Amino acid sequence: MSARRPSSADSLAALGETGLLRLLTGKWKPDRVRVMTGVGDDCAVLRGLGKNHFLVFKTDAVVEGVHFSPQAQAGQIGHKALARALSDLAAMGARPLAAVITLGIPAHESVRRLRAIYRGLERTAKRYGVNLVGGETTRARQLFLNVALLGECRGHRPVLRSGARAGDLIFVTGRLGGAQARRHLTFKPRLAEGEWLAKNGLASAMMDLSDGLGADLPRLATASGVEAQLDLAAIPRASGVTLKAAFEDGEDYELLFTARLSHTKTLKKKWPFGTSLRCIGIIHYHRLKSVELSFVHGFDHFKQRRGLPSLRGRLVC
Amino acid sequence: MSARRPSSADSLAALGETGLLRLLTGKWKPDRVRVMTGVGDDCAVLRGLGKNHFLVFKTDAVVEGVHFSPQAQAGQIGHKALARALSDLAAMGARPLAAVITLGIPAHESVRRLRAIYRGLERTAKRYGVNLVGGETTRARQLFLNVALLGECRGHRPVLRSGARAGDLIFVTGRLGGAQARRHLTFKPRLAEGEWLAKNGLASAMMDLSDGLGADLPRLATASGVEAQLDLAAIPRASGVTLKAAFEDGEDYELLFTARLSHTKTLKKKWPFGTSLRCIGIIHYHRLKSVELSFVHGFDHFKQRRGLPSLRGRLVC
Repeated sequence: MSARRPSSADSLAALGETGLLRLLTGKWKPDRVRVMTGVGDDCAVLRGLGKNHFLVFKTDAVVEGVHFSPQAQAGQIGHKALARALSDLAAMGARPLAAVITLGIPAHESVRRLRAIYRGLERTAKRYGVNLVGGETTRARQLFLNVALLGECRGHRPVLRSGARAGDLIFVTGRLGGAQARRHLTFKPRLAEGEWLAKNGLASAMMDLSDGLGADLPRLATASGVEAQLDLAAIPRASGVTLKAAFEDGEDYELLFTARLSHTKTLKKKWPFGTSLRCIGIIHYHRLKSVELSFVHGFDHFKQRRGLPSLRGRLVC
Repeated sequence: MSARRPSSADSLAALGETGLLRLLTGKWKPDRVRVMTGVGDDCAVLRGLGKNHFLVFKTDAVVEGVHFSPQAQAGQIGHKALARALSDLAAMGARPLAAVITLGIPAHESVRRLRAIYRGLERTAKRYGVNLVGGETTRARQLFLNVALLGECRGHRPVLRSGARAGDLIFVTGRLGGAQARRHLTFKPRLAEGEWLAKNGLASAMMDLSDGLGADLPRLATASGVEAQLDLAAIPRASGVTLKAAFEDGEDYELLFTARLSHTKTLKKKWPFGTSLRCIGIIHYHRLKSVELSFVHGFDHFKQRRGLPSLRGRLVC
């Protein structure tokens, strides 16, 4: 990413989330001795001590009115806050270690509700082996929870977004679409699946699907410098969901990954999980002519939507 | 800390920040194999790999209208967001490693201002050797920056709040009081001082002063199970500041620490910093009768103030 000076024409709506992050963080040049990957992947990766030890570091916030409604069940708010960050750890093939929580609280918030939110957080932490080790509170006009999560890979390397190569097949776990109406507060982060793929060296590139396949796959393709060709009929859709919704809805929190062709037999044969696994496409060299899927766009926090914008990624069908 | 069920009488105002954190996090029982210290110190401490390697983990947010005014200089907002977390790392004697930033942005925020905030953040990161490795943005009604910071101690143990023993002397760096009017956006976290104290084994307990000596010293004393006797005349005050203000103002971001009596000669002789160092009191066994300083209270985000509440700590004069 290259940084540039903001011009007076820049606005959040014009830049979009990705453009803003590029503008704000494009000049960051972390020390390569300690930092393996900074901005641009699901998590940052720091080199630990010893050859095959890596620390994986993530921050993520949920805000009332943005990521959950005021009517949401309190325990599920706590679950979502932690599970979103866990999903990013899963996408690196990392195991969670510890989390610290910042809670922003409006003046008249109910203590009972906060307590219930934290009970949800604790249940999810227990279930996925996260040590809750620190908490801060601050006043705020809007309830928010920020989760900072630390994980590690021991004995294997984390899986980055940048490892996809021509000839790799594209896989996705679970079923896509419709999450915002049904399971965005109750989804299961694919931690066991992600770690298994990383430990067995079966994923060449991986990320989690948070903004929708239509927004996320181009990110993986761009990070790897490749093009992705999808078999639209193979995309696993949640029941009653259109193809468009499976591309665009977001909040799936499923794993999207690529695997070497030579590994796919082993992958399918040894996959030990109940979670469904589908091959949805193939990776090509970047020189292929890209075709715009005009009905596809992902979720963007800031970008104005005038009709349905076209995708400027590299999805080829 | 012991957890209890919230009753209908509980409100944020009645609980206060400390009471709320106790209620929310009091049941957290992290795995003792990996976690050395969880909630209750300036940072969480995780055992790293090898005997004398520790990871130090912190989260902290600044919110517009709470920690900085809308008129604050943008670069100083970025500085404060990171420097507050760095001050907590300093209090453990740790060296910063990497930070990830969550930015909450109102819809009509200026991109130019956000960029200037990030430039301030970057300058401070560079100055103190912090790798900025990840950033997330979210919509929010109120601008906020959450900094999650990872640091480490190599070759020495971190200094906890709980190590003060009877006979130790109490020290403070710099001058206290008046920060909110003058330097709360520009203070220097005492990282070099904290690490030097920890490396040389000269501090038995340490914390940073964020809520004022009157609120923070009782926390150190409570964590150590001791009582603190202060020499009020020795407390270093910023120019033009009353003793009351030096106790109560908060946001000093100076180090408060204790040292064994046998170490104090070495400490004073070898202290290599321009930062002033003052002995302000002595630690006693807990059985001393505690005396309330009725004019002292610290800054609390939630507690209602009706007149000047008395201190329920263990300050003895």
